[in-house]
Amino acid sequence: MILPKLPDFYVDGVIARAIGEDINYIDVTTDLLIDADADGKARFVAKADGVLAGIDVALRVFTFLDGKTRAEPLFKDGAAVKKGDVIAEISGKAVPMLKGERTALNILQHMSGIATYTRFCADAVKGTKAKITDTRKTLPGLRALQKYAVLCGGGNNHRYNLSSAALIKDNHADAYGGIAKAVKALRERAGHAVVIEVEVGSIGELREALGAGAEIVMLDNMPAGLMREAVNITAGRAKLEASGNVTAENVREIAETGVDIISLGALTHSAKAFDISMKWTTN
Amino acid sequence: MILPKLPDFYVDGVIARAIGEDINYIDVTTDLLIDADADGKARFVAKADGVLAGIDVALRVFTFLDGKTRAEPLFKDGAAVKKGDVIAEISGKAVPMLKGERTALNILQHMSGIATYTRFCADAVKGTKAKITDTRKTLPGLRALQKYAVLCGGGNNHRYNLSSAALIKDNHADAYGGIAKAVKALRERAGHAVVIEVEVGSIGELREALGAGAEIVMLDNMPAGLMREAVNITAGRAKLEASGNVTAENVREIAETGVDIISLGALTHSAKAFDISMKWTTN
Amino acid sequence: MILPKLPDFYVDGVIARAIGEDINYIDVTTDLLIDADADGKARFVAKADGVLAGIDVALRVFTFLDGKTRAEPLFKDGAAVKKGDVIAEISGKAVPMLKGERTALNILQHMSGIATYTRFCADAVKGTKAKITDTRKTLPGLRALQKYAVLCGGGNNHRYNLSSAALIKDNHADAYGGIAKAVKALRERAGHAVVIEVEVGSIGELREALGAGAEIVMLDNMPAGLMREAVNITAGRAKLEASGNVTAENVREIAETGVDIISLGALTHSAKAFDISMKWTTN
Amino acid sequence: MILPKLPDFYVDGVIARAIGEDINYIDVTTDLLIDADADGKARFVAKADGVLAGIDVALRVFTFLDGKTRAEPLFKDGAAVKKGDVIAEISGKAVPMLKGERTALNILQHMSGIATYTRFCADAVKGTKAKITDTRKTLPGLRALQKYAVLCGGGNNHRYNLSSAALIKDNHADAYGGIAKAVKALRERAGHAVVIEVEVGSIGELREALGAGAEIVMLDNMPAGLMREAVNITAGRAKLEASGNVTAENVREIAETGVDIISLGALTHSAKAFDISMKWTTN
Amino acid sequence: MILPKLPDFYVDGVIARAIGEDINYIDVTTDLLIDADADGKARFVAKADGVLAGIDVALRVFTFLDGKTRAEPLFKDGAAVKKGDVIAEISGKAVPMLKGERTALNILQHMSGIATYTRFCADAVKGTKAKITDTRKTLPGLRALQKYAVLCGGGNNHRYNLSSAALIKDNHADAYGGIAKAVKALRERAGHAVVIEVEVGSIGELREALGAGAEIVMLDNMPAGLMREAVNITAGRAKLEASGNVTAENVREIAETGVDIISLGALTHSAKAFDISMKWTTN
Amino acid sequence: MILPKLPDFYVDGVIARAIGEDINYIDVTTDLLIDADADGKARFVAKADGVLAGIDVALRVFTFLDGKTRAEPLFKDGAAVKKGDVIAEISGKAVPMLKGERTALNILQHMSGIATYTRFCADAVKGTKAKITDTRKTLPGLRALQKYAVLCGGGNNHRYNLSSAALIKDNHADAYGGIAKAVKALRERAGHAVVIEVEVGSIGELREALGAGAEIVMLDNMPAGLMREAVNITAGRAKLEASGNVTAENVREIAETGVDIISLGALTHSAKAFDISMKWTTN
Repeated sequence: MILPKLPDFYVDGVIARAIGEDINYIDVTTDLLIDADADGKARFVAKADGVLAGIDVALRVFTFLDGKTRAEPLFKDGAAVKKGDVIAEISGKAVPMLKGERTALNILQHMSGIATYTRFCADAVKGTKAKITDTRKTLPGLRALQKYAVLCGGGNNHRYNLSSAALIKDNHADAYGGIAKAVKALRERAGHAVVIEVEVGSIGELREALGAGAEIVMLDNMPAGLMREAVNITAGRAKLEASGNVTAENVREIAETGVDIISLGALTHSAKAFDISMKWTTN
Repeated sequence: MILPKLPDFYVDGVIARAIGEDINYIDVTTDLLIDADADGKARFVAKADGVLAGIDVALRVFTFLDGKTRAEPLFKDGAAVKKGDVIAEISGKAVPMLKGERTALNILQHMSGIATYTRFCADAVKGTKAKITDTRKTLPGLRALQKYAVLCGGGNNHRYNLSSAALIKDNHADAYGGIAKAVKALRERAGHAVVIEVEVGSIGELREALGAGAEIVMLDNMPAGLMREAVNITAGRAKLEASGNVTAENVREIAETGVDIISLGALTHSAKAFDISMKWTTN
Repeated sequence: MILPKLPDFYVDGVIARAIGEDINYIDVTTDLLIDADADGKARFVAKADGVLAGIDVALRVFTFLDGKTRAEPLFKDGAAVKKGDVIAEISGKAVPMLKGERTALNILQHMSGIATYTRFCADAVKGTKAKITDTRKTLPGLRALQKYAVLCGGGNNHRYNLSSAALIKDNHADAYGGIAKAVKALRERAGHAVVIEVEVGSIGELREALGAGAEIVMLDNMPAGLMREAVNITAGRAKLEASGNVTAENVREIAETGVDIISLGALTHSAKAFDISMKWTTN
Repeated sequence: MILPKLPDFYVDGVIARAIGEDINYIDVTTDLLIDADADGKARFVAKADGVLAGIDVALRVFTFLDGKTRAEPLFKDGAAVKKGDVIAEISGKAVPMLKGERTALNILQHMSGIATYTRFCADAVKGTKAKITDTRKTLPGLRALQKYAVLCGGGNNHRYNLSSAALIKDNHADAYGGIAKAVKALRERAGHAVVIEVEVGSIGELREALGAGAEIVMLDNMPAGLMREAVNITAGRAKLEASGNVTAENVREIAETGVDIISLGALTHSAKAFDISMKWTTN
Repeated sequence: MILPKLPDFYVDGVIARAIGEDINYIDVTTDLLIDADADGKARFVAKADGVLAGIDVALRVFTFLDGKTRAEPLFKDGAAVKKGDVIAEISGKAVPMLKGERTALNILQHMSGIATYTRFCADAVKGTKAKITDTRKTLPGLRALQKYAVLCGGGNNHRYNLSSAALIKDNHADAYGGIAKAVKALRERAGHAVVIEVEVGSIGELREALGAGAEIVMLDNMPAGLMREAVNITAGRAKLEASGNVTAENVREIAETGVDIISLGALTHSAKAFDISMKWTTN
Repeated sequence: MILPKLPDFYVDGVIARAIGEDINYIDVTTDLLIDADADGKARFVAKADGVLAGIDVALRVFTFLDGKTRAEPLFKDGAAVKKGDVIAEISGKAVPMLKGERTALNILQHMSGIATYTRFCADAVKGTKAKITDTRKTLPGLRALQKYAVLCGGGNNHRYNLSSAALIKDNHADAYGGIAKAVKALRERAGHAVVIEVEVGSIGELREALGAGAEIVMLDNMPAGLMREAVNITAGRAKLEASGNVTAENVREIAETGVDIISLGALTHSAKAFDISMKWTTN
């Protein structure tokens, strides 16, 4: 599994915000009770089965707080871990380790939760051509971490933002005199590196989008039967994306219609945290 | 319901980060297709039953992008809304409204999801003295929004960060020679405005914490029977907080043991987004 | 001419940096000599023929410094202006107007310089199908302003950044075992909204790229004759981009080869400032 | 040649902005195609004759992205380089090197372009007492890099910003009742570390400025003959600065009038990028 | 003396702001006169008796500017130093040491001034149960450094900010219908980790606050006699804080009334800088 | 009295930092007790005699928190106020007024303390030619506010930072082979807008500095008799600055030696806060 690397300075920005929120001034308990020279040793342990995402980001919290902390991952992002697996070992001064514990876990549990949910959906569609894809339904300041977690789960990323690709929705088409005119105008005005996707709600609109040369067509909230028809009509002239009301339960049925892409907002806005704890050891 | 007001400059920071992620350069679809002078009108509509949180934050996205947009909430934070309810009305130039739609909804859905989950738990414990409380298990950069959403749901906030109150966990107590010594040392060193809470795992530790004058005792992962015993032993000398493995399913049972506080990490790390859509209108 | 709107908060960030550099503490001349209540009135006047870009950004400098300043553009971005044309009128308190003068002009002259150069190239290729396009050869912190200025000049934007589209260069292809394998791998791994462009240096590589299904092919530093051959071979199966050693002098010759896109780094890294001055008036 | 060192944290701020613009999320091509463990080796090669500026800033881009990258300059800032000269050698992991290439070159080409243009002007006035000087006509967020590049080219810096020295222009003098009164007032009010320069448009104004004790007088847009007269009249009582419509073509003629300083906005707003490429090597 | 550790990234933020203000572009004297390779060696020397605070923060200025500078403290924060004591030794390249000198001393002198003043007050109340405490009367952007310095002096911290503890002042009580009602409402609404303090101006109000269960009562501007009466009435039911018009002169008298806490705004808003100089050595 | 205006965006940065420190999340007392719609009215009242500085900055805190708050200054910066004077009137919603009270007063008291101390020194030297001047001994992040406050007190500003003027200290001179050589080198290398000041410790060094053409000479820690001699020797060829161990007590004696400038670090690092309170009114 090939995974990209998020820029360190971006990751540090996220960590600094989280640490700023959580420590603010001092850790009144740890700073006033624990000897600054005391050593500590701990492990991240999975408390359920799931897929890991964000281990490097999470461990960076500890070195961010104290460059001398040693933090070794035992699994890589994208790995399937089992309940009880030791995911990482951390050792160093106890004070910065105690201060970073919550922030590191918050990041790791959130990202791994997304990866686990994505993997579940990706496995569900195995054998079909459909790819599981995220959306722009992400949380403020966390888009990069969340989209990266989707990759860890075996999903693909939809457009990163509003400037990286075009998606003509009904508002855009209506305002411009219909799908065909909108596609044509956008093809003329947008740079050649911009893909044009069109959202359609009916077979009629699909035909209009295909006729206008749309490279991707999003089938919005269509029942499976209609999607199958859309696949037949399209016949490979454009990629088809199923979107709207997709759940872990119906994702297989949708995939079997033959669509190329299935996008789920839930991957990033409703995944449950993956339970991981930090166990302190004495030896 | 009395709710605090988050500082505008803090909210604007969150919005700027979200808009920066989502627009980055331009909205290649909207900017190149929609006339900058075209007017728009839309409504936020609930697609399920739930509790509203973050409506002012979400609507501020639109005025952040264009100060002339009018955005009127029809419900206040903390209100229970029903599927189909119109939550807010937005009107102004269509371009900034289209650009802000996703960011506004992402915020509102996340915060309302937290409030809805919190309200569900709060309702479940009604009639007992237990208060539903959040934890420090929040997402990077979003703690204030998330803790505020918990208030909207009728929950209470636990300590805001590591400097605002003390929580002596086993690591702290062990490192300092036991609970009693740790409480005493911290009472001496910490400022008078710092509450001291102690995490205990057994009745023995509870007695030690009470003897040392702990103001709050966290019962960590105790079965309900043991909690009841703890309540009896404590007899009002300290507040008792139930923590660990609390779910919407067992929260009532826990509340009935007589504890004062029940804290759930899931409120902020695993609440599902509350489904709200933006419907464009023509009249 | 349809032009996008840059987000205000982004523009304000650029202005704040510029003002911070230029004022820092105080304007020791203006602040200590000019009465804070004195009124001022001035005009931006073109001192040559050219194309305007950034007028709203530049005028925002004045309202950024004093919200009560009135600043009215008499031309819009993208307009061709003649030497002597009055481009904008500014009136308000003299002190903030004097303080903002240099910063506003620096922005306007730079952006209009880019637009003027772009327009010159765009005019030169008129009648051909070639579109003039920018590159990633932009200045730190100014990419959005510069790419927007290219649009004002009638050019198109190439990919905005490294995450918004793929460009397989020789290093990438070599590292991956050739163009064909690289295109195939990337098509599998990248999201469906990512366009894949391939840089080629020979007709052989062009054929390999076309065979692999590249959507855009960049002809790197090819002589015009070879480009013409490439156009014939490609026959519309992909878009062709001419790149490298393009100048205002040879851009027409290149366009006539039939390529779809001509990209010039010089648009953003070597355009001369367009001369505009701020004339103070007394009536 | 003695050159100052820009503060690292300032340079890192510029780099972070540039990298943020260029990478944003991931490098979709490099991250998904190139093995994270693959090594790379490359050289910066001059593609023309010119003067180097910003080599440390540019190379810092690579260590900013990956602290283990080795980047060795073979020339120092201020050095004259010839077409074909190897300017620096970079080796390390190929992925961060590919990601940093464009940003590093953008900075180096811009700064070296300024230095090259400055050196050309400085050489042109050799043998006269005139010093080539920059202005406040710089680009937002880049003033420090640009002014430093002017030093690399052998030029001098004019005042850094509006608070570091005074320049009484006609607006200031008019508003205050004439040059003499303005100089006197400012001498009284401004700190003793503030130099006072006066802009004059005629011999009469020059006499007034000299009489008032101006330490520097800017001769605004004067023909060479008039400048010569100004030099004679001044007779060393103040430094004289020639400003306005100075070009590489007429700078020698102006210098020969005997002025002390010649300032050119074009150094920073219109210098062409100096062409440098990054050549990847296999051995 | 156990002292907390401020987060490095927070400290670096303060240093970057200070260096940005002080260096801005370059150090025109040092950068243009001193050889970049010249070595330097210097000592921080106390020029009076006092208490040290901020030595790690101050020395970090030098490594912030040049990671190779060696900076060794000879005393720790909280130590009493005598006039003439060598506090730290710094060696490395002379240029960054000269550039950092002023910033490092500014920080160290301010923080040590606070610690010295605090220690003076803490010593004055020795033998009583009173603790010397700071307030929220801190300087913008410096609260953490100032509160930490109070700890170095042997004082305690009052609440860190408005969200970490409650303090019901007369405005709050008046608006809510009296002290008792306000305390009761706040106890219900605020989280369990929030301590409630009430400000009272009379014995009557004290009784009301005690009756309502206030955990801390602030005696606002009371004469010593009244404070003594308050101590008797309270009889340990709440902690008592003396506040208002406390000076180094009357602090002992106040302490002897039996109050638990004495808070002084002057610790952070009016402490004189502690005189420390940087002596350059040649051997 | 002519006073400069600090840039609003700079002031807002200071306020945002202060508010961020003080409110952080919410004002747990005010937000949970006071009705968001309740009106408030209050006055700033001087509790001693002094000089006002920062009134606009302080009042901006209230509009920063709530744009609808009305805040009217009754005195301007630089005004002498008497104990009991009403300095400003503030009215609006009580909640944001209560939240901003402490931050606004912290700023106003600090700046007015500096102005008051400066005015005391300026008055002490009245009738002599000496000007009271600040130094670079300022607090991190507050230089602009502090230097502005010195102007309010009737003092002058020394150089703003290390790049705005040169000050050759003994380290610089020693490293460069003596004062004369250092002045000459710097005159050649530094821009024409940079004033050169030389620090001297003896009459011999003074003569060397004068001979080298130093524009300003700083007499470092000289006794009054020696200063008088320096004044005689200099005879107007340079400005003389007395520095080191200047206090409010000896400033007159120093001024009478005939020096031009007297600089005091204490103005910014040791001024006591000027006592001002916010009185809430009911009518």
